Amino acid sequence: MLQTELIISTHGPGLYEITSDVRNWLNSVECDGLLTLFVRHTSCSLVIQENADPEVRTDMRAFFDRLVPPSDHPSMAYLRHTYEGPDDMPAHIKAALLPVSLTIPVTSGQLALGMWQGIYLFEHRTAAHTRRVAAHFA
Amino acid sequence: MLQTELIISTHGPGLYEITSDVRNWLNSVECDGLLTLFVRHTSCSLVIQENADPEVRTDMRAFFDRLVPPSDHPSMAYLRHTYEGPDDMPAHIKAALLPVSLTIPVTSGQLALGMWQGIYLFEHRTAAHTRRVAAHFA
Amino acid sequence: MLQTELIISTHGPGLYEITSDVRNWLNSVECDGLLTLFVRHTSCSLVIQENADPEVRTDMRAFFDRLVPPSDHPSMAYLRHTYEGPDDMPAHIKAALLPVSLTIPVTSGQLALGMWQGIYLFEHRTAAHTRRVAAHFA
Repeated sequence: MLQTELIISTHGPGLYEITSDVRNWLNSVECDGLLTLFVRHTSCSLVIQENADPEVRTDMRAFFDRLVPPSDHPSMAYLRHTYEGPDDMPAHIKAALLPVSLTIPVTSGQLALGMWQGIYLFEHRTAAHTRRVAAHFA
Repeated sequence: MLQTELIISTHGPGLYEITSDVRNWLNSVECDGLLTLFVRHTSCSLVIQENADPEVRTDMRAFFDRLVPPSDHPSMAYLRHTYEGPDDMPAHIKAALLPVSLTIPVTSGQLALGMWQGIYLFEHRTAAHTRRVAAHFA
Repeated sequence: MLQTELIISTHGPGLYEITSDVRNWLNSVECDGLLTLFVRHTSCSLVIQENADPEVRTDMRAFFDRLVPPSDHPSMAYLRHTYEGPDDMPAHIKAALLPVSLTIPVTSGQLALGMWQGIYLFEHRTAAHTRRVAAHFA
């Protein structure tokens, strides 16, 4: 059993690839097992997404910004938790809609990711943040 | 390896915190491991959310009620599975959108939850229900 | 510890039940443990849904097709990743919104599924596909 905490610095909304951080940590593993990642925050997410065309990540962010607009947008006037800024409550909502944890089988030390799958931290807040991801392998 | 079933009584839609139920069950654990929670229903969810301001939970419910209105709302006239009431099919949709299972690393018996993270059962049905959550630690 | 890869052939969007594929694979298991399923693609999902009324699955697909319309729909004109067809980027978005992995406790060889829960692969692409699901039991 291995555990660590990955630290990811973010500077605004969007998808930050962490696949190589995860692979580096699992570098010495040669056996079968299960990887779990768990993000220790309620305003960012962990997602598996296409790692080829960067426009997929641009479109992804654009979709979620339209699905959950900032709280100063007229359509969101019903929101009450607004004192940390217009990106605060939408970030919590996106963090409910998107995964807080990922579990990925590992075979002979290799993640079972498909050819086009990468692991991303999806930042929902505007300000820079230091994000902590608990990682577990067993 | 430990397994149990947590029983949660709900009385209408909203978020019910179960963090202390989970911690009480893990009370005797002092080692590292992985906690898995799995809700045995298709009309409620498990979410990690902010445990500080209660308005976050109010806003969360308000957002999802607007994203997936009751089936007697004009915008939902295309729904067919309506015989259990207007909150039935929307509950299934919310149960697809939000997590059915959560996996959380445990270090020296402590859940890797961030400072502001709580574990909630998110009830989507209007009537009172008894909800069963399968819990597994290994 | 057991690992395998389940192969599922799909022929257009919708929910394909794989509960019996999973149960058949776990057939020889009599102990407690944890099942993890992980889909190795970014344009389909794994969901737990009601296994009784087929209209639940019809309604589910109808909802997500309205939430994330094809990229040639006027409301989606902002999307850029469109060269693989109008169902391409919406499939990636649905794959972010819906689970890529599921973890289900197993007790004495029995999945902790509730009475009305089935395991489904949710295909988001129009063309026929061969989908691979990594399965892990420990």
